[in-house]
Amino acid sequence: MGEFDIIEQFFTRPSQRAVLGVGDDCALLQPRPGMQLAISSDMLVSGQHFFADVDPAALGHKALAVNLSDLAACGAEPLAFTLALALPQIDLPWLQAFSDGLFALADLHHCELIGGDTTRGPLCINITIFGEVAPGQALLRSGAMPGDDIYVSGTLGDARIALEALQGQLTLDPQQLAALRPRLERPTPRVALGRALRGIASAAIDISDGLWGDLQHILKRSHVGGTLDVPCLETLMQASGFSYRYALAGGDDYELAFTAAPHWRNTLAQYAHSSQTPITRIGQIDAAPGLRLRDAAGELLQQTVRSFDHFL
Amino acid sequence: MGEFDIIEQFFTRPSQRAVLGVGDDCALLQPRPGMQLAISSDMLVSGQHFFADVDPAALGHKALAVNLSDLAACGAEPLAFTLALALPQIDLPWLQAFSDGLFALADLHHCELIGGDTTRGPLCINITIFGEVAPGQALLRSGAMPGDDIYVSGTLGDARIALEALQGQLTLDPQQLAALRPRLERPTPRVALGRALRGIASAAIDISDGLWGDLQHILKRSHVGGTLDVPCLETLMQASGFSYRYALAGGDDYELAFTAAPHWRNTLAQYAHSSQTPITRIGQIDAAPGLRLRDAAGELLQQTVRSFDHFL
Repeated sequence: MGEFDIIEQFFTRPSQRAVLGVGDDCALLQPRPGMQLAISSDMLVSGQHFFADVDPAALGHKALAVNLSDLAACGAEPLAFTLALALPQIDLPWLQAFSDGLFALADLHHCELIGGDTTRGPLCINITIFGEVAPGQALLRSGAMPGDDIYVSGTLGDARIALEALQGQLTLDPQQLAALRPRLERPTPRVALGRALRGIASAAIDISDGLWGDLQHILKRSHVGGTLDVPCLETLMQASGFSYRYALAGGDDYELAFTAAPHWRNTLAQYAHSSQTPITRIGQIDAAPGLRLRDAAGELLQQTVRSFDHFL
Repeated sequence: MGEFDIIEQFFTRPSQRAVLGVGDDCALLQPRPGMQLAISSDMLVSGQHFFADVDPAALGHKALAVNLSDLAACGAEPLAFTLALALPQIDLPWLQAFSDGLFALADLHHCELIGGDTTRGPLCINITIFGEVAPGQALLRSGAMPGDDIYVSGTLGDARIALEALQGQLTLDPQQLAALRPRLERPTPRVALGRALRGIASAAIDISDGLWGDLQHILKRSHVGGTLDVPCLETLMQASGFSYRYALAGGDDYELAFTAAPHWRNTLAQYAHSSQTPITRIGQIDAAPGLRLRDAAGELLQQTVRSFDHFL
């Protein structure tokens, strides 16, 4: 079985949204009149972003989920994606499971595979994703203002806790691992939340390298600082019972961190309730640069947090 | 030096064409009203597509060139690209040369880097490229008609000959290797030719896996067959003096193969002359399926040609 058979058997489906899908030199996409295209690209490398023996269906899910999460962070509507895949060998059951996991999530978001590349090499997956957003509506990292609230969706640190358990760095009982492992291997991109935040959030980012590091991208781009309340971070950890440091420096969360002016508090609480999307207010944007931690008494804490960086 | 420093130092430049470039969760692209977006993605893996010790400037050039070549094959205008890069280590001179080679070619085509990903892993480069083309104007693989002429641009086989020489499978004198090696390492995408073929070519493809295999993608998609004239293929080999089988099964050529109705012969000859772009008529599209070779006497040859496939 060769490259083109693989593409035909596992990665070619009728085109619904693209003018031209898989199978030519280029795919053709016709954005709706006036709409902007939001584009993001994430590469997953074996041994670096996932274990080589990970469930291939989960891997197909995650490879797309981390890209959908970038669209979510921009408030963009998922449209299509390309898939470049380096494979060490042709393993048909693996390819079937991988493509099943990939397309299950793609279908959920009406996001269409329109092209890509397949080659031999160390297992590596690169998806580039395309979404639509009206001009001026995209959520950026650059709009946070002093006085804005800082929020995160869902819970944080779960993926990191599961990772450390799988690596033998900490011990979880089997039930707890079973509960947390999907957060590492099958993250849920917050696409609907991103959409709902258009016109409300002043800045947003998805949390892939840990809240502490990712939030600082917002601060830097917005030329502001921020203070996080440790008691709020601790509420994020109630389910797992671990230290809030996992919430700060976990990584692989694929939750959204965002900022919004205080007059949006009620609207956000209502949205959280009606959509059953946990949203937690965890701090505030300040004029003074830098990111700080504050305890229940309002005292600033002296501590450093290391965020995840693939080269550190 | 971490991931974000690498992006900032080597891969961030002011945005000219994109609404939003490198540095947020997504880039934002606003296609011109009514235009379609042509999208292609090519992955280059160390040891598979290039030698690990290849000149990084040439590698930066080639990684973009193979993608520009896909836009050329569609007749699309280059617009922007994303770059996902897995690096085994941080090597500053390597990154400087790689990005210099990449941007030199990008600037030549006014094609802008708008985002991507940088991670640790076995050296792997995936570029996804975006071009613009008016609706109905894209060159596809599917339009070849019986009676159409078959053409290729430039010369073929040079890259394969250089590759075999570098691998020690054949011997070239140093001058000849010096002449052919840039064809392997710094291919020239035929963007201007692709643009000129809009409205003329009935089908087109860029030759990356060898003419024999790539032409059959046109035949299959167009539901036709074809016959190639060996004497015409031999004229393609005059410069190198090698067998025409290198023209058929070379690969890494990044020339265009295309078909056009016979009444375009003069127009194409004039274009070839005025643009100094070699274009050679090498055969004809037939109704009978399959691809055949015909000698100077018009006799069909019995022989098989193996095209390049990363999994065979």
